Amino acid sequence: MNFASDNIVGASRPVLDALIAANGGAEPAYGADGPTRAVERRLAEIFERDCAVFLVATGTGANALALSALVPPYGCAVCHREAHVIDDECGAPEFFTGGAKLAGLPGVGAKLAPRTLAEWLASLSPSVKQMPPRALSISQATECGLVYTPGEVAALAEIAHGAGLKVHMDGARFANALVSLGVSPAEITWKAGVDVLTFGATKNGCLAAEALIVFDPALAEAMPWLRKRSGHTLSKGRLLGAQLQGYLANDHWLDNARHANAMAARLAEGVTALPGARLAFERQANELLPVLPRETAERLRAAGAMFHPWSEASLPEGERVAPHETLVRLVTSFATTEGEIDAFLAAARG
Amino acid sequence: MNFASDNIVGASRPVLDALIAANGGAEPAYGADGPTRAVERRLAEIFERDCAVFLVATGTGANALALSALVPPYGCAVCHREAHVIDDECGAPEFFTGGAKLAGLPGVGAKLAPRTLAEWLASLSPSVKQMPPRALSISQATECGLVYTPGEVAALAEIAHGAGLKVHMDGARFANALVSLGVSPAEITWKAGVDVLTFGATKNGCLAAEALIVFDPALAEAMPWLRKRSGHTLSKGRLLGAQLQGYLANDHWLDNARHANAMAARLAEGVTALPGARLAFERQANELLPVLPRETAERLRAAGAMFHPWSEASLPEGERVAPHETLVRLVTSFATTEGEIDAFLAAARG
Amino acid sequence: MNFASDNIVGASRPVLDALIAANGGAEPAYGADGPTRAVERRLAEIFERDCAVFLVATGTGANALALSALVPPYGCAVCHREAHVIDDECGAPEFFTGGAKLAGLPGVGAKLAPRTLAEWLASLSPSVKQMPPRALSISQATECGLVYTPGEVAALAEIAHGAGLKVHMDGARFANALVSLGVSPAEITWKAGVDVLTFGATKNGCLAAEALIVFDPALAEAMPWLRKRSGHTLSKGRLLGAQLQGYLANDHWLDNARHANAMAARLAEGVTALPGARLAFERQANELLPVLPRETAERLRAAGAMFHPWSEASLPEGERVAPHETLVRLVTSFATTEGEIDAFLAAARG
Amino acid sequence: MNFASDNIVGASRPVLDALIAANGGAEPAYGADGPTRAVERRLAEIFERDCAVFLVATGTGANALALSALVPPYGCAVCHREAHVIDDECGAPEFFTGGAKLAGLPGVGAKLAPRTLAEWLASLSPSVKQMPPRALSISQATECGLVYTPGEVAALAEIAHGAGLKVHMDGARFANALVSLGVSPAEITWKAGVDVLTFGATKNGCLAAEALIVFDPALAEAMPWLRKRSGHTLSKGRLLGAQLQGYLANDHWLDNARHANAMAARLAEGVTALPGARLAFERQANELLPVLPRETAERLRAAGAMFHPWSEASLPEGERVAPHETLVRLVTSFATTEGEIDAFLAAARG
Repeated sequence: MNFASDNIVGASRPVLDALIAANGGAEPAYGADGPTRAVERRLAEIFERDCAVFLVATGTGANALALSALVPPYGCAVCHREAHVIDDECGAPEFFTGGAKLAGLPGVGAKLAPRTLAEWLASLSPSVKQMPPRALSISQATECGLVYTPGEVAALAEIAHGAGLKVHMDGARFANALVSLGVSPAEITWKAGVDVLTFGATKNGCLAAEALIVFDPALAEAMPWLRKRSGHTLSKGRLLGAQLQGYLANDHWLDNARHANAMAARLAEGVTALPGARLAFERQANELLPVLPRETAERLRAAGAMFHPWSEASLPEGERVAPHETLVRLVTSFATTEGEIDAFLAAARG
Repeated sequence: MNFASDNIVGASRPVLDALIAANGGAEPAYGADGPTRAVERRLAEIFERDCAVFLVATGTGANALALSALVPPYGCAVCHREAHVIDDECGAPEFFTGGAKLAGLPGVGAKLAPRTLAEWLASLSPSVKQMPPRALSISQATECGLVYTPGEVAALAEIAHGAGLKVHMDGARFANALVSLGVSPAEITWKAGVDVLTFGATKNGCLAAEALIVFDPALAEAMPWLRKRSGHTLSKGRLLGAQLQGYLANDHWLDNARHANAMAARLAEGVTALPGARLAFERQANELLPVLPRETAERLRAAGAMFHPWSEASLPEGERVAPHETLVRLVTSFATTEGEIDAFLAAARG
Repeated sequence: MNFASDNIVGASRPVLDALIAANGGAEPAYGADGPTRAVERRLAEIFERDCAVFLVATGTGANALALSALVPPYGCAVCHREAHVIDDECGAPEFFTGGAKLAGLPGVGAKLAPRTLAEWLASLSPSVKQMPPRALSISQATECGLVYTPGEVAALAEIAHGAGLKVHMDGARFANALVSLGVSPAEITWKAGVDVLTFGATKNGCLAAEALIVFDPALAEAMPWLRKRSGHTLSKGRLLGAQLQGYLANDHWLDNARHANAMAARLAEGVTALPGARLAFERQANELLPVLPRETAERLRAAGAMFHPWSEASLPEGERVAPHETLVRLVTSFATTEGEIDAFLAAARG
Repeated sequence: MNFASDNIVGASRPVLDALIAANGGAEPAYGADGPTRAVERRLAEIFERDCAVFLVATGTGANALALSALVPPYGCAVCHREAHVIDDECGAPEFFTGGAKLAGLPGVGAKLAPRTLAEWLASLSPSVKQMPPRALSISQATECGLVYTPGEVAALAEIAHGAGLKVHMDGARFANALVSLGVSPAEITWKAGVDVLTFGATKNGCLAAEALIVFDPALAEAMPWLRKRSGHTLSKGRLLGAQLQGYLANDHWLDNARHANAMAARLAEGVTALPGARLAFERQANELLPVLPRETAERLRAAGAMFHPWSEASLPEGERVAPHETLVRLVTSFATTEGEIDAFLAAARG
């Protein structure tokens, strides 16, 4: 009954099998290996266009490299104030950019509204005292489990581009968002104005593999050096390439995401039926943020269930967590079973 | 016949098996997993003392993190002028330290002599114009395949410590050096004055795993944050922990290194028997740097053999590569077979 | 009628005279000159203790150097969200620290309340994902012209020190605050818990001179190199030393501040007598932030008066600027004359 | 008898007068003041073209800002191995660029030969392991007092531009070189291929004033922010503007340089007539590097003469400093008098 996050399990079987299969024989080092080359081609197909692909082992590495390609050391990137890049990466974007600032804006469910972005941009002074905004970063799905539709991404991107900002999408849970939306990878990214994507795979079936996808080749020019000097160019690149081969083959990645989302739906249904429980936000991907009676939460923990309390900073207007209640986050993954969910719900009911 | 490097093969079987074995079940994220904890304990046993251990996926990451813990942004680290940290990491140490300088000194076989270090330290001005030296970094084995004895390390470390410098050992080929020397891990590191070790494992049997070992806990205080903000804290830490479990169990790492070294010895014997060929440096670990007739090198390449030409900057006094000759580097690994060596030698003979 | 800021005039006469007097003859370079040495001794007297003094030409340089001595690249500094260091220095603290973050907290009149600081510290997660707080920076006087009393500084410093943070005071308008409070320099700084002070002099009579004063010598160890590598070690150090000699001699600096504050008091009295005008905050030093009828502000601008509109983000509870009103900032200096004030008030009355 | 450097005196009279004249009245802050604007126009006239001008107080600041506009954090700048930027600025270029590397090449008299540059460029590997070269920095005059002719600059710049490098000239002693060469400012800079110039004025008559001149406007786009975040944008910009107004008016700067060079010529004549003394390099600007009998040098120091010993690393082929000799550097300035020189020579003769 571990719903703490979707990074607590290992690799899914096809990913592990691909890793085993790619282990033998000699391959060129530093990302020139066959599996990595194959993944680059496969991602170009999946995204329906040429793109520059850089495989790395962590989402923090991918996000920070992305922002360092978009934002100069004297610039700033704007994101939601609960975004992973501003809150959970111990200053990786500041480090990789050489000192740029992240500006955090409010928004329900960790989701940025176009109007919020536009008003913030309008409020900035052109003075040299201020760090000029150069990138917008949005999380897909958000840290509260909500998804941006292609229209919402496009509205944000239009405002951003109009003010000279590039658009980064932190897709740590990209697959979960994608299958929730039922759109194509192209529609939710470059066709909607995304310039650089962190294509997450670790949480959805890999052990450690993310693809930094740069849709505008001009933005990728410095990336080989940026990645190398950050220590994120793996010596035996096949480790990354092979995982992603297994991940992308036969729509395995989409199957994993569909499973995780379905488990989240099942969990949501059960949780909302608990006495005194409700969801703070609609369940859209593989995360749900229920408000539980404290008593229920304690009963669950006593039974061995694992999950994190969550910040109340981005609740919808009117929603309030009472003193006898607690806001928590439950995350499902490709490996979550119906049995785990049923056990969790049984424990909740006591 | 690929002798280009020891990073062109995958994982050795016990390492891969350990990875497969550790794949199932839930584990805490970010390095709090069971396999990582077990490896930390195992390394403390192997090095016969408590030490702080930080697993990362690349040698560049480990080296740069190590130097960033030892050298302030306004300081400098001294190393051989062909050291990997100064020559092959695209400025990772400069990046991670926030702008420190690397000073490269000469030395036969990419090996630093105590006298060279002492004279350089004595030549420095105390002026604030100069970046003060704060760390010495040595490679074990060196980039030309030579090993430092415990006495040699101790002599360098004594000079370094006397001048206020900490000592880092880049052990990308630590196991190969160790079995070549026939000493204990403790004897060649902290007992000889090494403060921080990059314990390489990727080249000797893992896919991507290095252990940054800090012998003085005070030097490790900032490391959890330094690693996190560099994106080198893996979400599913078991990937690193499991590889190293397999690597360290049953002296597998030492067996791998012994095999690689034995293959290098066999190759050295055969190469020196080739007409017009000689070794530029004694073969001590798993690398050899022969001077070959250009004709021989061309014949080898034509037969499909892979290897790199090498810099002549650190040749022994008196050694000179004639116009009809070429200096190359041949590297063996745990996976090198006698058959490959025999085929290489046969091709060399034409 | 220029009340835009206190940096729009040149040097006061005694400062200029000292500069002229120190111009002749040879002096050692890089801060080893006689005037600089004399200033170091004088400041130790003024602050009643040994301290390390580093003269620089800009407040941004002094503040950023101060923070870089206190905060590691993976740490954060906390300040008011309208503090000069977070809002007006184009990322200088981020640059000098190598990527640290500034956290901005709310507070009426750009002044931090102890409770706000304590609650923020308590809210932080100990996770390695978060950048640990290492310094508190407060502005004396604040960006809205308010001063911290010794008791208020001590209350903040006690909380900060208790959580492992060092305390920086940005004293761009230190002299104005000092004479407003009627306390000694020691009482409002190190005796109240300040570890590092930016002793501003540019705004109060110099052309370009600030003293970075480090009360705890251990914190100053790296400063000579930090200053040198930032280009803030002047070749002809007498330029800074001489200005400060003139500034500090015969309590000239206090006289200048008293004059500026008196002019601000006179201006405040006149402004509050204007129809429809009121002060958003008490006038305590040499800045006042009146809410003016827009009509009045326009009349003033038309008459050639210069001043800046100001942010409404830190107004006292209950204070609101109506649509027909505007919040502006008026700053007086050592050079402000009664005539200017009378002319301004006359113009305001129309 | 102080020949230690040309930064040991204050400002020349016309510079000081200009500073005094500009002290009164209100001026906009941060470089928008009248004197600064006037200097920008004057420099455009002097250099016979539009250019972007940024005034700063130190040469280290100007050089580091220049390099940070030309070299990305993963790149490198090449210069002579005794260049001020690599040897005397405590890592300012590394700091401002965010971690770029400086590569130091050999050359007689601290002067780079085109062939040396070309061979170095040809030796570089295109591998991502190497930091790509992006700028050439040359000192005019060099650290050994030699000047580059327009033809020599053009030859270097052609090679640099051909390899994608921009060209920076560190003109700490630009005026001395200029009058030595008898060419126009345009001829020795942008017409010969210089992209960015540090136009030094501090050593030749100012107290603290350098102009960073960017001939290609595209390279200057980020400079306002780069300067601001480095703390080098002076609040009361007139301090810099006024000095340079006085410096540039009526060819005062050229007169100062001619005087310094003439004094150096007189000193050179006298020194070479001393028994056992000779110049290591031709005297071309305001520095001479004589080899003196140790006895002579000691006699001079005993008599109170001040000068620095100098590195023997860039001596001409065949030149050797014997054990009973010493290589020293003597620098003259606008303020050097014939009397000082005669006293120095008399003391040398004993």
